[in-house]
Amino acid sequence: MERIEQHASFGGRQEVWKHASTTLGCEMKLAVYLPEPATRGQACPVLYWLSGLTCSEQNFITKAGAQAHAARHGVIVVAPDTSPRGDAVANDPAYDLGQGAGFYVNATQAPWAAHYRMQDYVALELPALVEQHFAASPLRGIFGHSMGGHGALVTALRHPGRYQSVSAFSPIVAPSQVPWGQKALGAYLGADREAWKAWDTVELIQMAREERLPLLVDQGDADEFLAPQLQPERLQAACEAAGHPLTLRMQAGHDHSYYFIATFLGDHFDHHGAALAAGPN
Amino acid sequence: MERIEQHASFGGRQEVWKHASTTLGCEMKLAVYLPEPATRGQACPVLYWLSGLTCSEQNFITKAGAQAHAARHGVIVVAPDTSPRGDAVANDPAYDLGQGAGFYVNATQAPWAAHYRMQDYVALELPALVEQHFAASPLRGIFGHSMGGHGALVTALRHPGRYQSVSAFSPIVAPSQVPWGQKALGAYLGADREAWKAWDTVELIQMAREERLPLLVDQGDADEFLAPQLQPERLQAACEAAGHPLTLRMQAGHDHSYYFIATFLGDHFDHHGAALAAGPN
Repeated sequence: MERIEQHASFGGRQEVWKHASTTLGCEMKLAVYLPEPATRGQACPVLYWLSGLTCSEQNFITKAGAQAHAARHGVIVVAPDTSPRGDAVANDPAYDLGQGAGFYVNATQAPWAAHYRMQDYVALELPALVEQHFAASPLRGIFGHSMGGHGALVTALRHPGRYQSVSAFSPIVAPSQVPWGQKALGAYLGADREAWKAWDTVELIQMAREERLPLLVDQGDADEFLAPQLQPERLQAACEAAGHPLTLRMQAGHDHSYYFIATFLGDHFDHHGAALAAGPN
Repeated sequence: MERIEQHASFGGRQEVWKHASTTLGCEMKLAVYLPEPATRGQACPVLYWLSGLTCSEQNFITKAGAQAHAARHGVIVVAPDTSPRGDAVANDPAYDLGQGAGFYVNATQAPWAAHYRMQDYVALELPALVEQHFAASPLRGIFGHSMGGHGALVTALRHPGRYQSVSAFSPIVAPSQVPWGQKALGAYLGADREAWKAWDTVELIQMAREERLPLLVDQGDADEFLAPQLQPERLQAACEAAGHPLTLRMQAGHDHSYYFIATFLGDHFDHHGAALAAGPN
């Protein structure tokens, strides 16, 4: 672990670190916001943010206004990159496949399987790393945007008990049914659509048997990707059928941008903050 | 005036416009945040933000978290670009001269004089444009960062009565005395240092005879540019000598970044909001 950025911010520190990921087989950067108590060694809960297509560890920490909320709630915020990176890592010229587009899955197909294991990175290696190197309690929440909203929902649903709270902005809820998801899951997991179900929120909601972590989802109704890629009505139907608690808020006039995220981010911090303050499930 | 971006944000709208500037002789972009009352045609005061070296109209609106504060106070926020732009506009390969580095002066020297009239643009053309096209009251405040902090202080001091309030983050307060300022003023205004005094906050403070607009200045004490370029002690000495009201806050551990600006931006909005709510001077 090597710190490559450090900025005072809202009484705490915004940092960026790099490390050699054993899961991904490459060097990775991650952003870590430490609220003031964590800078003094007092253990704080950790909220993981997963970003969308084309993003790095920088987008959320520079554009969302998250630090004010993290300081208010006393939570650490960790934002990893969105894929493995580097010249040795497979890539694709399209913005929605390869580097910057890991989709938070564990790839099984060549040439992706060698490095693209973002699910294990986010759910396993990253929390272990964070809980070892920072004043982090074992209480975790997870949230994200678009591809990262999909990542947050899928990661929480695949790991019952591992997260105290989950939420998403404009998530891809049914990747098996929409172009972004079909392209990515087809490439990373192969043509067998049965294998896609384990990475599809709507499918996982139907399969969930035990823990029913309440979902908070915000979606702009002027989002250009709403109809072709996001389709929150599929999530609503799946949650209703399964009895899964969902708060889906359609936000009038809002688009897919960080202006949308910033506007409602305080509500998401309140959602996670309450669950994290309540302690283990 | 042509709108080129529009995003719902904190109940209002973040917009970006372009227009043909008669003052600068080129096309310019400007960012405008409209709080909800302004979107309904209710006149709101306007706060002008001037950015620092290398910035465009985008930096402040994407990185500072300003919209939450603007919505809370019901003020319009206008962030122009930092220089004239385009292939027909003189430029320099250095980051601190030419495009992206207008220094908010009216240039008198070739090749700059043809387009580099940022002072008249910011103080005259821009308010006229904004007050014509948006639901803007004639109440104005001005603030900025680094080169833009210099711009805000100089613009307010050069136009007594025109602004209700002024503040700055890490401003260049004595451009005549520091490398950034000496390079820019030398290029734009020529070698005669007498001509620089009209563009130097410390000099203007000494010359001010009537209005004494209180200054709020935040400066990080871990700012890499503090000693070589910023030297707030010169502003403090000038204000003490002239009896000019100054609140200079040295912020422990803070650097020159937008993380610093975001941390204290709410205090600056409170400073401006109170003056703007109080009405004309």
